[in-house]
Amino acid sequence: MQDVLAANENTAEENAKLFGNKRVFVINLMASPGAGKTSFILRTIAALRDTYSIAVIEGDLASKVDAEKIKAQGIPSIQINTGGGCHLEAGMIRQAVDHLDLDEVDLLIIENVGNLVCPADFTLGESARVLILSVPEGDDKPLKYPFIFKGSDILIVNKVDMLELTDFNMEHLEEVVVSLNPAVKIVPLSCRTGDGFDAWFLWIKERLVDNHSRM
Amino acid sequence: MQDVLAANENTAEENAKLFGNKRVFVINLMASPGAGKTSFILRTIAALRDTYSIAVIEGDLASKVDAEKIKAQGIPSIQINTGGGCHLEAGMIRQAVDHLDLDEVDLLIIENVGNLVCPADFTLGESARVLILSVPEGDDKPLKYPFIFKGSDILIVNKVDMLELTDFNMEHLEEVVVSLNPAVKIVPLSCRTGDGFDAWFLWIKERLVDNHSRM
Repeated sequence: MQDVLAANENTAEENAKLFGNKRVFVINLMASPGAGKTSFILRTIAALRDTYSIAVIEGDLASKVDAEKIKAQGIPSIQINTGGGCHLEAGMIRQAVDHLDLDEVDLLIIENVGNLVCPADFTLGESARVLILSVPEGDDKPLKYPFIFKGSDILIVNKVDMLELTDFNMEHLEEVVVSLNPAVKIVPLSCRTGDGFDAWFLWIKERLVDNHSRM
Repeated sequence: MQDVLAANENTAEENAKLFGNKRVFVINLMASPGAGKTSFILRTIAALRDTYSIAVIEGDLASKVDAEKIKAQGIPSIQINTGGGCHLEAGMIRQAVDHLDLDEVDLLIIENVGNLVCPADFTLGESARVLILSVPEGDDKPLKYPFIFKGSDILIVNKVDMLELTDFNMEHLEEVVVSLNPAVKIVPLSCRTGDGFDAWFLWIKERLVDNHSRM
């Protein structure tokens, strides 16, 4: 297992160099099944597509449901089927980007396999790790899946439109998340209504501008 | 990986023999994080505890939140922390049951790590595989995580009280699930309101009676 992780790290570093040279900002998007990863990507595409060119890599066990939703938007989308594998690895990304013209991409969004455990161990060469937790999953998830919460740059708390149907306590969640990961940015929003997305758009635009303007 | 799976199968067979000798009916309870596994166990305990003696094994990455909720009910509860591992294995169950008096247990519920991928590959020696999908996760999950849906004996569709806040289509879900797994029983219910639990209680009671009465 240690060997697998070390080999993955090496490939991830090569990916990161490639993305750096091509000035592509790369998001590794992680979440439980059904937390709203694809809806989140679709809203992000709608808001940014006029300013930035976007591509998507979709990781799935077997289907191509999500990749087709992205393609329907006219956005380049590469499907990786892991054949049952529980996470993406850096080598899969390396192969997938061969099918993209990275010179034409500002933002590459990688939708990882729905899983709060295994993706935490496999870096892909990404610029940022974006984790989505959805309100119906409950505010106790950071304590139960601490590794993935520790390793994320920004936590999206999706489905806030369902707050009143649950006993989810946002203050309690924030307290626990910050105790695990003091640097993390937390953004509550709803992919269904669009509420709260402004904070996410500011966060990602700031990084896209920085990524373009650096020497 | 093939060796790991084969070794696990062997230990699982030994577990199954032990459970058979002791006439313990064993559930392997699987779901995404936040689908409602622990709430489901608590409702099951409340309904069956006067008739059957119940024990619980809690699989978690690191915390003991769930095991403490079970212990608060006065039910024997063993915590397995996988230290980041994404699923339970038969060997972990073998060790955990050393801490239980199986002669005094009718129903052993094993709460697997919250994950729709990896637990599908590792049988534990269980009598039945119970899978929970919750409505907010969406009705497209069987297509995206087919392996775990194929391998389950009963599918609990939890959080039906949230149906009207989503575009979840129960008929569509049932169609897809049955196409993957024609023998599966599907039970929609709500751990929050208690609606729909009767069908689950009937299902499990029938199996507990059979398990006791066989030669």
